[in-house]
Amino acid sequence: MPYRGRYRLLGRTFLFLRSSCSEKAKVNTHFVANITAVRNFSVNNALNMRFVQFTSKNGGPQHLGVQLKEGGDIIAVSAVDSRIPNSLKKFLEGGDDLVKSAKRIVAEGRSVIPAEDVHFLAPVMRMDKLACIGLNYSGHCEEQGVSPPESPVVFSKFPSNIIGPTDEIILPSISEKVDWEAELAIVIGKRCKTISDKEAEDCIFGFTIAQDITARDWQKSKRNGGQFLLGKGMDTFCPLGPAVVTKESISDINNLTVKTWVNGKLKQDGNTSELIFKPHEIVAYISQFMTLLPGDVILTGTPAGVGFTRKPPEFLKRGDVLETEIGNLGRLRNKVL
Amino acid sequence: MPYRGRYRLLGRTFLFLRSSCSEKAKVNTHFVANITAVRNFSVNNALNMRFVQFTSKNGGPQHLGVQLKEGGDIIAVSAVDSRIPNSLKKFLEGGDDLVKSAKRIVAEGRSVIPAEDVHFLAPVMRMDKLACIGLNYSGHCEEQGVSPPESPVVFSKFPSNIIGPTDEIILPSISEKVDWEAELAIVIGKRCKTISDKEAEDCIFGFTIAQDITARDWQKSKRNGGQFLLGKGMDTFCPLGPAVVTKESISDINNLTVKTWVNGKLKQDGNTSELIFKPHEIVAYISQFMTLLPGDVILTGTPAGVGFTRKPPEFLKRGDVLETEIGNLGRLRNKVL
Repeated sequence: MPYRGRYRLLGRTFLFLRSSCSEKAKVNTHFVANITAVRNFSVNNALNMRFVQFTSKNGGPQHLGVQLKEGGDIIAVSAVDSRIPNSLKKFLEGGDDLVKSAKRIVAEGRSVIPAEDVHFLAPVMRMDKLACIGLNYSGHCEEQGVSPPESPVVFSKFPSNIIGPTDEIILPSISEKVDWEAELAIVIGKRCKTISDKEAEDCIFGFTIAQDITARDWQKSKRNGGQFLLGKGMDTFCPLGPAVVTKESISDINNLTVKTWVNGKLKQDGNTSELIFKPHEIVAYISQFMTLLPGDVILTGTPAGVGFTRKPPEFLKRGDVLETEIGNLGRLRNKVL
Repeated sequence: MPYRGRYRLLGRTFLFLRSSCSEKAKVNTHFVANITAVRNFSVNNALNMRFVQFTSKNGGPQHLGVQLKEGGDIIAVSAVDSRIPNSLKKFLEGGDDLVKSAKRIVAEGRSVIPAEDVHFLAPVMRMDKLACIGLNYSGHCEEQGVSPPESPVVFSKFPSNIIGPTDEIILPSISEKVDWEAELAIVIGKRCKTISDKEAEDCIFGFTIAQDITARDWQKSKRNGGQFLLGKGMDTFCPLGPAVVTKESISDINNLTVKTWVNGKLKQDGNTSELIFKPHEIVAYISQFMTLLPGDVILTGTPAGVGFTRKPPEFLKRGDVLETEIGNLGRLRNKVL
């Protein structure tokens, strides 16, 4: 199956056809070989970036890419430089040298692929911690009739619960009450322990969008001794993506809309300005207990408008389409099966 | 620094000196080159094995090894065959072909290293799930004055909480009530979802020893909204090892002593016969909620004798030595700092 490549260089667009996108080495040589022109980016501002993980539409290996704007072209940084891993977690573990290399590649504008030619995976996977904060929007506390907590309530999901931004949520046979929770997700960039609120800002690499899908009949009942884990940790219960947007790209993280639609109907319409504990406060707090590691993801809680507090209660059913959008970070679109 | 190697072949012991153990390739060539004699094992029973992860006493790279008996010599399977990963998780992900290769190497008796020459790491790390079962021994329910649960209570720790069998437990400054919990730990060998109790036996690769170290002032209070995670998930709170013993090596998993000593004084003295939910039932149960993956570890709960229910309550303090033993699986010895 031919694979279409397109390079935009100095304002012009070049189209290529190649036979296969199934091997990283081939992408390297075929896509990149003759590209020497320099894009109109400076290295200094190039951390204003959206990191994505993707494959070709036809499958093949995973690549790490940088998307230049929402819905825009992608520079396959792991295809251009073999030292750059094809996973964001490993990229972050590699530290500043890799970040510099990625900036350079983006500035050079090499190996550009149109967004419509790729399949987006979750932008970060297989991390040590996929943690979540409960009751972090006053509206979500009110709709449940509970007081806001004095300190963040921390629970977790499992990394294997993660699915990509357009993957399907599978309703488990053991639950009748699967609910949505749109959440801003923090992505940790560097190892940190026992840090202050101020230091925490430096440990955050960027942000992405998550759905903290929840089986209420397992979370809210006494079935698991009051522990949330089983109701939160089922397969496909964490749609994530489409991009990890670097913090430098976001003008005000504490003023982003947080929206969920089910079958096109708006269900959640909050704003991160309502967050009780802000992202840097959450990171500093958790770091008092444990070392945070590159690639760790922390979901920051959901605003009002979830299904189980509606009158009558609403839950996801087969065939529903769940859409989630936070500011200009992008949009998840997950069908329910 | 010279590294001492010893081969036992046909009942005789041979000693070698070599210059370095810092590279896998060197171990391959120096250790293994001239060893052609075949040990007195059959391939059929060779899954009666203890898998260990280790480095040289002087550091260097991690190896995957098979220990022939508790405290016995180690065959560095990942050093002999470059297709065998140096991590047990990746080894298990590789499936039956790798298991067969390891069996063959063990049968051939190549690359044998005395246990006293190695530093044991935790035998499995960086898994997707480090799950735990609460209240799974009637004695531990009684000492807390609570009824045994009707189904397993599942919570979790983080993989980065894991330390090796002789590593140090670091008391966190934010807790005054750090307690011990000796636990039999299940290691999953293959991907499984929605399986029966009977099928679950096939998904278990083996067992190891864990301490589910717990900050009671964070687990048992309302501080984290009743969620155990912060009290369970602190750095160094999961000593694990020394070996993952294959299930075939254990004559009766439901009849193993479970013991904890603090500074040589016996504190827990239970038996896996008291387990309310047996290992295969736990695996089948959790698989109803989520896909279990190779390398996943599930702690099965602790018997009576923990610190916080004693009169007066006892907690770990700096300088304590915590020892944990389950049947003939081995022993953990962790100093408290």
